[in-house]
Amino acid sequence: MTVRVDLYISLDGYATTEGGTADNPMGADWNKLTAAYVATRTFRERVLHDTSGAGTTGIDDRYAAAYFEGVGAEIMGAGMFGFHTFPDDADWNGWWGDEPPFRVPVFVLTHRNRDSIDMAGGTTFHFVDATPQAILERATVVASGKDVRVGGGVSTVREFLKAGLVDQLHVAIAPILLGRGINLWSDLREFELGFEVKTETAESGTVHVTFARPS
Amino acid sequence: MTVRVDLYISLDGYATTEGGTADNPMGADWNKLTAAYVATRTFRERVLHDTSGAGTTGIDDRYAAAYFEGVGAEIMGAGMFGFHTFPDDADWNGWWGDEPPFRVPVFVLTHRNRDSIDMAGGTTFHFVDATPQAILERATVVASGKDVRVGGGVSTVREFLKAGLVDQLHVAIAPILLGRGINLWSDLREFELGFEVKTETAESGTVHVTFARPS
Repeated sequence: MTVRVDLYISLDGYATTEGGTADNPMGADWNKLTAAYVATRTFRERVLHDTSGAGTTGIDDRYAAAYFEGVGAEIMGAGMFGFHTFPDDADWNGWWGDEPPFRVPVFVLTHRNRDSIDMAGGTTFHFVDATPQAILERATVVASGKDVRVGGGVSTVREFLKAGLVDQLHVAIAPILLGRGINLWSDLREFELGFEVKTETAESGTVHVTFARPS
Repeated sequence: MTVRVDLYISLDGYATTEGGTADNPMGADWNKLTAAYVATRTFRERVLHDTSGAGTTGIDDRYAAAYFEGVGAEIMGAGMFGFHTFPDDADWNGWWGDEPPFRVPVFVLTHRNRDSIDMAGGTTFHFVDATPQAILERATVVASGKDVRVGGGVSTVREFLKAGLVDQLHVAIAPILLGRGINLWSDLREFELGFEVKTETAESGTVHVTFARPS
């Protein structure tokens, strides 16, 4: 069982974007940050339900496919689920439509007391208020041998990284400079110690860096 | 004529290191930051005068060789020359021994009034107190059609970057996190606009990113 993180960040380390609007809640920068991922065949199939076979099939797509492989449970922060953007929408059930791409139990970290939601396709959202360690224990049981992913956002990921709970960190770095937002790398001096580090560049110019504990 | 910058930085953007001592003035982190460069055949030949043919000959070496090709003049800050580390040494003539690797006129930005020094192998150090624009004009004349490199350190490079004076920025990113020092990327939001960006990974795991103005 591996605890995994995958994030899309800028060359200067920013994993969140600002300037969002109701129409474009993640902001214009988000499109630049995730352009190579959104262009992949895997994203189109898995997230947009586009089965036409369109989309890139190179190195970015290999990472996009790996993102979904072997994951048995997902953990995400309240912000990634959308609670911070739509705090008053009692029926809010995330950004991902009626059939979210996760297809596994998803634990949403929140102080809200809410019933679980079963979505089409195998995704169930559970709403929990617990420490990273406690939530990881619960997700590990549910994943029953498969991997647990800490999906985001970056503040949630940083909590798990700083607590030493992550076994594999993959960042897809877009070669752009955002200059604002939350920086993934703050105060992570020598994080690489104890990990094997692999770097690879995709056709899109995206740089993939993976920190993995030696197996 | 191209104004070029090449820097070695960490994954979190730091281009300087701390904790230096008299024996190891750049600090222990510096060795990690430049390990892939120091391992190249070009570094061994050009900087260490090791003509045995030892050293790596892959992608890192290609960038190391390109570093020295076609440069007609170099600009560096007082810190890179060593004035901040050895302020009281009136005979200090840089870190690079009697035969520095530059082999061109080098303009050292400093408030000190010092005579130029001719070194073996074609390097002359000039000591100048001027704006980035003025020093670049002077270096451009001396380079007579060849490129001008802004060598470092990172504070000097950032002055030239922020003034829009750099045509080509190459960073060699070591996949390590330093978490302290001067960050190359601070306040450079959307620096990539107006540049073509190329990314490439070397056998060592070093990520090479180049921003170049379209020719």
